[in-house]
Amino acid sequence: MRVRATSIGEPAGGITVLAGGVGAARFLAGLATCVDPASITIICNVGDDFEWHGLHVAPDIDTVIYTLAGLEGEGGWGLRDDSNVALGALGELGGESWFGIGDRDLATHLHRTRMLREGMTLADATAVLATARGVRSAVIPVTNDPHPTVVVTDAGELPFQVYFVQRRASDAVHEIRLPGAAEARPAPGVIDAIHDAELVIVAPSNPFVSIEPILAVPGVRDALARSPARRVAVSPIIGGAAVKGPAADMLRTLGHEVSAPGVAALYRDLIDCFVLDAVDASLVPAVEALGLRAVAVDTMMTDPPARARVAAAVLQAARA
Amino acid sequence: MRVRATSIGEPAGGITVLAGGVGAARFLAGLATCVDPASITIICNVGDDFEWHGLHVAPDIDTVIYTLAGLEGEGGWGLRDDSNVALGALGELGGESWFGIGDRDLATHLHRTRMLREGMTLADATAVLATARGVRSAVIPVTNDPHPTVVVTDAGELPFQVYFVQRRASDAVHEIRLPGAAEARPAPGVIDAIHDAELVIVAPSNPFVSIEPILAVPGVRDALARSPARRVAVSPIIGGAAVKGPAADMLRTLGHEVSAPGVAALYRDLIDCFVLDAVDASLVPAVEALGLRAVAVDTMMTDPPARARVAAAVLQAARA
Repeated sequence: MRVRATSIGEPAGGITVLAGGVGAARFLAGLATCVDPASITIICNVGDDFEWHGLHVAPDIDTVIYTLAGLEGEGGWGLRDDSNVALGALGELGGESWFGIGDRDLATHLHRTRMLREGMTLADATAVLATARGVRSAVIPVTNDPHPTVVVTDAGELPFQVYFVQRRASDAVHEIRLPGAAEARPAPGVIDAIHDAELVIVAPSNPFVSIEPILAVPGVRDALARSPARRVAVSPIIGGAAVKGPAADMLRTLGHEVSAPGVAALYRDLIDCFVLDAVDASLVPAVEALGLRAVAVDTMMTDPPARARVAAAVLQAARA
Repeated sequence: MRVRATSIGEPAGGITVLAGGVGAARFLAGLATCVDPASITIICNVGDDFEWHGLHVAPDIDTVIYTLAGLEGEGGWGLRDDSNVALGALGELGGESWFGIGDRDLATHLHRTRMLREGMTLADATAVLATARGVRSAVIPVTNDPHPTVVVTDAGELPFQVYFVQRRASDAVHEIRLPGAAEARPAPGVIDAIHDAELVIVAPSNPFVSIEPILAVPGVRDALARSPARRVAVSPIIGGAAVKGPAADMLRTLGHEVSAPGVAALYRDLIDCFVLDAVDASLVPAVEALGLRAVAVDTMMTDPPARARVAAAVLQAARA
């Protein structure tokens, strides 16, 4: 039970956000300036978690924590102004060093790995790491179980980070596989956070490799579909392109329309309201044709004030 | 099969050295200047290996490799002029940071851990790491199996690094336990290296926590006892004190004489010749009374030239 103050204009219940990486983290940083951060519960994708030289790395969780703490690095990943001594030495030794982890960032993975090896759940380790960074929102991995994303491409079946980082998302994607999904159990609090919230927000994240792995954990999609909360999704596609990452390419190769309504269609049975960018205002009727309320606002999060404006606009749209 | 050139004065067969940490590493650095480094096989203690935040750390192996590569840090451990960004960040996060690992040193443990997780043996991973540092001697862990040293002290039963680093070897030691010894198998090449060498040297290391864990691997003590090689041990005790570390305290609390002959007595059934320091020349008869040849030479390895002089003197003593 979190103790919280209610600000003017804040929903009386909590806000739960389904979150992937950088886009979600920036949106959350804005949201945390609009409402009491302690009223926000963040359910994080773990599909891009992987083992790096024995360490458990959780890029989406860390990006959310680092960004909420105001410490995120260039491009949204890692820690700002981090050094790369260990990574450089690893490369000189002949070790694999295509996944860049800075020296201070390494401390996160060392600490997390130790906690996991000592028997803590990923959720408990995540809570420790978020608290250590001064984050007041609840950051919860969607599951404590192994639940990796596998990407089927022209180059074969690839672990997510091989596809995304090592090969720079350059391969055409034909299928997303979630081999752990059937066995994964929602982490404690996940289902309640979706059911009991006043508002559930699907962050502007990649629908296939950020949001779908969250929804694919048994019970989560259903909880969202049946939640009495207001439910809103924010488009990661603006003007037919992804703000960041391979979402547009994936929409295309997976057979969907590369547009905000193309994303809205993926969520139509799960949400009430879809927020698309002002440049896509002409597509509002196409979203409404899906049976959703549609609101066009400026959603570009170029700097912290813009993040706050976007979050405020989404809150307003959700409550309209 | 290693290809090697025979230098003048070098034994025709190889030299095998049983090695612990800093003392052994310094002796080996000297030895490698006296004979072709490729003629040296080093059998390393793994009793102080431990898992550090999920990484496999092997302090004695690394100290030997780093020292042979001329890269060893202050005090003999770690890498020279290493930075401590990750360790500092780990401490700030609330992680355990009493075991100091520098940023460049971390690369060794990351690379080793990855190789082990991919199914390589510790011996194979060690060979990769030694080669990457340009070390031409064979560096072999005594076993690929888990074989930790446990120290029974006034403060209870402690994992070796908790006793040695975290508690600074400040507890009186009543017993050394090697719970993995019965199940440990010698790594490939260990028994042959002891049997086939022209000369086996027991390095100036702690007899209880460096050498005994090597001898305790089934087959190793027997191989040394029966080896046709010349067999010599170098005293780690000079003038009744340990050059470094808790060997003198352990001799005392474990009920042995705190002297070079006290160490010689531990090895009497395994060696032919014992080298003690020139300051202990008056103790030569006491060592001879054990049935061993005894040679007193200067054994202090204060700088690289001294290391070479000590190694040359030990070679000469062994061949006398």
